Amino acid sequence: MELISIIPDFQPRNDPHLLRKAEALKPVLQYTDFPAPVSCRVNGEQMTPESLKERPLRAGDQAILDFGRHLVGHVALNLSTAGSHQDAPAFLQLDFAEMAGELNENPEDYHGWLSRSWIQQERLHLDRLPAEVSLPRRYAFRYLRLTVLDTSPKYQVVIQGAKCTAESAADWSSVPEKQIADEELKRIYDASLRTLYDCTQDVLEDGPKRDQRLWLGDLRLEALTSYVSFRSLDVIKRCLYLFAGTRFPDGRMAANVFTEPEPAADDTYLMDYALLFPVVLQEYLEETDDAEALADLLEPALEQTDWVLDHWVDENGVMKSDAGKVGFIDWSESLNRDAALQGVLILSLDACAALCEKAGDGKRKAEYEEKAATLRQAAGRAFWSEKEQCFLSGGQISMHSQVWLTLAGVMPEGKAKAAFDKALNLPGAPKMNTPYMHHYYVAALLKAGLKDEAEAHLRAYWGSMLNAGADTFWECCDPDDLSASPYGGMIVNSYCHAWSCTPAYLIDKYFI
Amino acid sequence: MELISIIPDFQPRNDPHLLRKAEALKPVLQYTDFPAPVSCRVNGEQMTPESLKERPLRAGDQAILDFGRHLVGHVALNLSTAGSHQDAPAFLQLDFAEMAGELNENPEDYHGWLSRSWIQQERLHLDRLPAEVSLPRRYAFRYLRLTVLDTSPKYQVVIQGAKCTAESAADWSSVPEKQIADEELKRIYDASLRTLYDCTQDVLEDGPKRDQRLWLGDLRLEALTSYVSFRSLDVIKRCLYLFAGTRFPDGRMAANVFTEPEPAADDTYLMDYALLFPVVLQEYLEETDDAEALADLLEPALEQTDWVLDHWVDENGVMKSDAGKVGFIDWSESLNRDAALQGVLILSLDACAALCEKAGDGKRKAEYEEKAATLRQAAGRAFWSEKEQCFLSGGQISMHSQVWLTLAGVMPEGKAKAAFDKALNLPGAPKMNTPYMHHYYVAALLKAGLKDEAEAHLRAYWGSMLNAGADTFWECCDPDDLSASPYGGMIVNSYCHAWSCTPAYLIDKYFI
Repeated sequence: MELISIIPDFQPRNDPHLLRKAEALKPVLQYTDFPAPVSCRVNGEQMTPESLKERPLRAGDQAILDFGRHLVGHVALNLSTAGSHQDAPAFLQLDFAEMAGELNENPEDYHGWLSRSWIQQERLHLDRLPAEVSLPRRYAFRYLRLTVLDTSPKYQVVIQGAKCTAESAADWSSVPEKQIADEELKRIYDASLRTLYDCTQDVLEDGPKRDQRLWLGDLRLEALTSYVSFRSLDVIKRCLYLFAGTRFPDGRMAANVFTEPEPAADDTYLMDYALLFPVVLQEYLEETDDAEALADLLEPALEQTDWVLDHWVDENGVMKSDAGKVGFIDWSESLNRDAALQGVLILSLDACAALCEKAGDGKRKAEYEEKAATLRQAAGRAFWSEKEQCFLSGGQISMHSQVWLTLAGVMPEGKAKAAFDKALNLPGAPKMNTPYMHHYYVAALLKAGLKDEAEAHLRAYWGSMLNAGADTFWECCDPDDLSASPYGGMIVNSYCHAWSCTPAYLIDKYFI
Repeated sequence: MELISIIPDFQPRNDPHLLRKAEALKPVLQYTDFPAPVSCRVNGEQMTPESLKERPLRAGDQAILDFGRHLVGHVALNLSTAGSHQDAPAFLQLDFAEMAGELNENPEDYHGWLSRSWIQQERLHLDRLPAEVSLPRRYAFRYLRLTVLDTSPKYQVVIQGAKCTAESAADWSSVPEKQIADEELKRIYDASLRTLYDCTQDVLEDGPKRDQRLWLGDLRLEALTSYVSFRSLDVIKRCLYLFAGTRFPDGRMAANVFTEPEPAADDTYLMDYALLFPVVLQEYLEETDDAEALADLLEPALEQTDWVLDHWVDENGVMKSDAGKVGFIDWSESLNRDAALQGVLILSLDACAALCEKAGDGKRKAEYEEKAATLRQAAGRAFWSEKEQCFLSGGQISMHSQVWLTLAGVMPEGKAKAAFDKALNLPGAPKMNTPYMHHYYVAALLKAGLKDEAEAHLRAYWGSMLNAGADTFWECCDPDDLSASPYGGMIVNSYCHAWSCTPAYLIDKYFI
């Protein structure tokens, strides 16, 4: 996530009561050993993991270990020497890569705007071999390249073994058995769950390589997918409490929350993410009927929506035209976000009404319903173009506007297909750049009854990642340029990203 | 040490009985905390360690911490952040330097023949700050440069503190109080003991930065100096047992021994080093009257000298002319070592005779004495040049030949000064390149009664290192080019090296 909408002079206001409950919900991670790579290459030459032991490595040699699947966990290397006794430290470089292509990029050449510190490269000096070298950090990877930077002329390094202890708070045995006859859908379904599995950690992380952090927008999509698979209900609840427990002094929730060393809101606000909190809570309660969560989190949830109503909606019930500066919707420089944010706000109001109903507060339920109705009407008036037969936002046609106002139930009956086609095919219209946005596009197609188009897009978009060798789904994917990076180098891309995990949810709910 | 005289198809032959005793003599290291640097600079600007806490470091910033003295030990950094919450790992580089000048060299530019792995540079990714970061390796350094390779645009790194827990098996409280009125001698004496202190570890190491290993030639000089200072008798005894316990199948001792993971001889033989074993043992017994050591180590000692007699001495009692290929004497490409090795062998025979006398073996004592007398006479005949009025080795005049044959008592009465002057001033004669050789030069001057010249040389040679900012004495020193390195870069030089520690011994014995 780009760092947008940063709060100046940020002061956190943690709620100890809520954070104690979040702490108590901390999951016990499950550890699974992957005791060896499934294949390897030394200086480009393919070999079996067994024969690796017979291949002493000199300065400059490179071994690439392929663990056969994307893993998140800790790595241990069993290293020994060949030749004379080790008479100088072994100086090694380790490069961890989620996608093989990352190994072609040199960290020194990375000058993008993300921190280079995310690049999973370590340099080690090993004074005493043989040794079992347990690396202290967690990595997200499938490929591990070991480069011998130096030994001495008298000895070589031998890789006796390598293992990864994968970790996740999710449990494969919780996933209901599904019969998915279609092979392509099955592959997409599986990769989607692997993505969610690898992101389900101490919290629902956005990406285990980067940012390793709890974001509200990602949480919603992870939670939806988790309900049909791992059902990590306690982790989801913990995440809800973390957001509620770390609100800003004015009651708003941060776009993301840190958990170490203590829970702390990031000084970043994204309107649409905050508006989704009542939605995530409402969906959680649909799954659990958790009275404690409703009691604790109702008011924090309503506060999110109220704050936007109070600050960002004009007297006509329309999102103010500079709202985009505090909204996300999608990675896009050119996108006008007003219409899409209006859509998110309407959905948020619906969720607030449902929450109030659950809490037995008929009065507030009716108020939220009325407000939602007002905003729906206002949205139609403000954003629908009779001339263009689609929604315009600040005069701009984008799929984003069609999608969110469709999801909000504002799309006029029978107009969706033409509006979507127009936004899709209009030259110069903002592209959908993230799987996050593509998920909502598929959801909007389904909402509009365009099920075949939804399935076709799901297969085409997420399938393109699989065709490019993905084990897990990515943070960003442009099917026309699969090695693209919004960060200036695929070496910092996250190739296992929570907001990309929804195909399992969509397939489960709509396509089997 | 260069890797010379490597044994092909080397098979170790460890002696468990002797190695058990070596293990039992393993010293308990003493730890001394140096809780903070004494001064620091950030991006070239001088500041107090206290004000460092007020100086957040961004990507590209460099802090150089000066601990005020050479230290050998483990380092811990207390790091925190300034700015927003840490939202990406901190990526730091640490460069440890014994001499400030090392920090001007870039490890990437080092292409000398020593392993780059000796360069004390680490790169760290710190996922969670604040943290107390305890580095797992031991460093030899006075200066620590911390470079922030990257943070994120949102936060900076703050050095709250840095400490070094120095370690040594030596004990300052064991050093007898010495009154050294002369300031220069006092400074040389002190630096000499600091050098020995930092080298006295689990064994008497050659250099705590590099090679961190027990070499026989270095051991002799460390032991001599230790007897007049720390008196680390158990460590010296342990070292003797390690050499004796790891002999080659033919009985020879390696030039150096590894101690990890198990004691193991290096596959390197240096004739003069092996010949010094009886000398070191004899000197140890002079200090201790250790009957157990005499009983255990007498035969291994005699074997060293016998093997050279059997293999390298011709029928005339003269070192064979290709002996230099298995000898060290000094770092020197052009040096002919035959005469010097003859000198070492004679001293070794003297030591064997003394050991046999201690053991009550009068017969063998007489044999060694006779052999020594024979080799002395042979040396005079073979190497003394009446024309040149000095020793020649392979037709070459070198100080090395004068020194070792003087120490062996072969220098004709009254001829030493002229011979030394000739070797010193002859254009093109091999230079003395190491403090190891310079020690024996001073010892030979003293043996020849040239005490003023000895003291002047000691002051000039070791003083030149102090004038260049040394805290401890170096592995190599050319007073005419103080930044020279035999390895192609001062970044791999060892600036605290055991064989350079003898001024304290020489001063104690001869100059106060």
